[in-house]
Amino acid sequence: MTKRRIALISTGGTIEKTYDELSGVLANQVSVLDVMLASLELRGVEVQRVALMNKDSLEMTADDHTLIAETAGSMAGVTDGVVIVHGTDRLAETGERIVALVGTPRKAVVLTGAMRPYELRATDALQNLTEALLAVQVLAPGVYVAMHNQVLKFPGVVKDKDRGTFTRVDG
Amino acid sequence: MTKRRIALISTGGTIEKTYDELSGVLANQVSVLDVMLASLELRGVEVQRVALMNKDSLEMTADDHTLIAETAGSMAGVTDGVVIVHGTDRLAETGERIVALVGTPRKAVVLTGAMRPYELRATDALQNLTEALLAVQVLAPGVYVAMHNQVLKFPGVVKDKDRGTFTRVDG
Amino acid sequence: MTKRRIALISTGGTIEKTYDELSGVLANQVSVLDVMLASLELRGVEVQRVALMNKDSLEMTADDHTLIAETAGSMAGVTDGVVIVHGTDRLAETGERIVALVGTPRKAVVLTGAMRPYELRATDALQNLTEALLAVQVLAPGVYVAMHNQVLKFPGVVKDKDRGTFTRVDG
Amino acid sequence: MTKRRIALISTGGTIEKTYDELSGVLANQVSVLDVMLASLELRGVEVQRVALMNKDSLEMTADDHTLIAETAGSMAGVTDGVVIVHGTDRLAETGERIVALVGTPRKAVVLTGAMRPYELRATDALQNLTEALLAVQVLAPGVYVAMHNQVLKFPGVVKDKDRGTFTRVDG
Repeated sequence: MTKRRIALISTGGTIEKTYDELSGVLANQVSVLDVMLASLELRGVEVQRVALMNKDSLEMTADDHTLIAETAGSMAGVTDGVVIVHGTDRLAETGERIVALVGTPRKAVVLTGAMRPYELRATDALQNLTEALLAVQVLAPGVYVAMHNQVLKFPGVVKDKDRGTFTRVDG
Repeated sequence: MTKRRIALISTGGTIEKTYDELSGVLANQVSVLDVMLASLELRGVEVQRVALMNKDSLEMTADDHTLIAETAGSMAGVTDGVVIVHGTDRLAETGERIVALVGTPRKAVVLTGAMRPYELRATDALQNLTEALLAVQVLAPGVYVAMHNQVLKFPGVVKDKDRGTFTRVDG
Repeated sequence: MTKRRIALISTGGTIEKTYDELSGVLANQVSVLDVMLASLELRGVEVQRVALMNKDSLEMTADDHTLIAETAGSMAGVTDGVVIVHGTDRLAETGERIVALVGTPRKAVVLTGAMRPYELRATDALQNLTEALLAVQVLAPGVYVAMHNQVLKFPGVVKDKDRGTFTRVDG
Repeated sequence: MTKRRIALISTGGTIEKTYDELSGVLANQVSVLDVMLASLELRGVEVQRVALMNKDSLEMTADDHTLIAETAGSMAGVTDGVVIVHGTDRLAETGERIVALVGTPRKAVVLTGAMRPYELRATDALQNLTEALLAVQVLAPGVYVAMHNQVLKFPGVVKDKDRGTFTRVDG
């Protein structure tokens, strides 16, 4: 069977944070996405990696959100779907920006992230990446976040900081 | 937001095998499904556990397949979807049986399993369970297998023994 | 066979740091030592937990070092040995303080710690705790650090910051 | 500091068993010892690997025990110590054979094994290998088993099958 070609745009965020034992902090330095991908069995997709930036999303500028949105829109025109790995704090801004700039993309665009870095035993990174890579294959064209066993469609999605996940504005 | 009520029917298979250190073998004795569920963040579903049997699917009888199919059909009528955890060797038989007995169930019925038990470091069990619990929320009514980053719709699905996964007959 | 009674004095440090997903930092808040102990098979020792403090050792005062040293000296008089879990940055100060205050304790006193918290997949915490709990049973009375497959005797031990481990002053 | 040169003789056993997903069984086929060694920080020893055999110890012949004993005796004469990875069912036979053939070897010879293969999440393999690689550095010349936080000296050690560990005959 033919695998779907999926663009995987990485932008940083908690999901990609790694531990530096000299300073004792978790930071966005090298991408662990390839390690995560290698630990999954991917029979449905052929992943095309687009390493756009590696930032804590709290440090993203308006230009960053626009760059990610434009890249997602372009890639949705030439692939079978787009997954975006993103910091959760500003993930919703990027989701809304894609809708504002692109409207309905030609294929599904699915954002995801994590509350606990991959390097932690109790990470949610693998669950969320798994969900995004599955959802992108079965969802209709549109912009979504897939995370914590939930798919929500933009516009109208916000981070629920108290519960550490996403919800609908009209929740 | 309201969570979807999902029936999780467990029947055994590699995904649930545990290690007995006295005999040194992996067998279906106690279910580790609850441990797996506890390790995931489930914001989209409310799981209702239905522990139907705990068998290596190679030992399933025709009656077993029918019992699973009937249970899945019934639960699809009273919940928002059904996930079935199943041994991979006979998973396709059960999928076809559901289609034969139920036709198109009222909600999505998603089968899944694993090639390597949850107790192994390199298990595919969490990936597959994650995919099934996500897919059941977004798929149209029908019978599917979700596993290894792939969703396939019955009828017409078979195990590809050489590659250790599922494929379409007309693949 | 009779198990040795070992006092396990916890003082904090990287080995006990846990991740707070709201702030996104690793800090000394709750002790994960009991989780670590539960994951080991301890047939040789009966552990008596002494939770003295839970600090990054960079924040330890002179009084803290003295308190730990006095407690270690006292416990060595009433048990079969003492293990101290400690931040690595100031572990050597505490080791030297014990020697200065107690000289040769009545039983072995073994300090240990970690460069990468237990909560990380790639932690060295379990290795080091395992080594300390084994070493305390077989070493002669004295003060030691056991970590990274190495046992070093105080006085004369320093942290080798570049290599992220301990070494002898006389190298 | 100079690292001790340690011969690591591997003979198989549960500790080295790996999972074959086609047959669904755990067997001694490839050695995972190198993966285990790479996951530890070994600052005290320089390991010299001696891959002697890879057998379930229930299948060892009298010649096998003798071969292991003679190899251990020889290696103890030219290194700073010997660690032997062994199936637990016949580990005690090999320990007694070394004492019978070699008496007190020139350096410590430490046997170890595991009740649950390394490939399982809940393995005791890393704990036991860690203990053996630490114990071999600090023990006086003699033949020992180090496992489950316990060091026992041959002769006079037997497997306690009910408790899944080792004990002294005069226990």
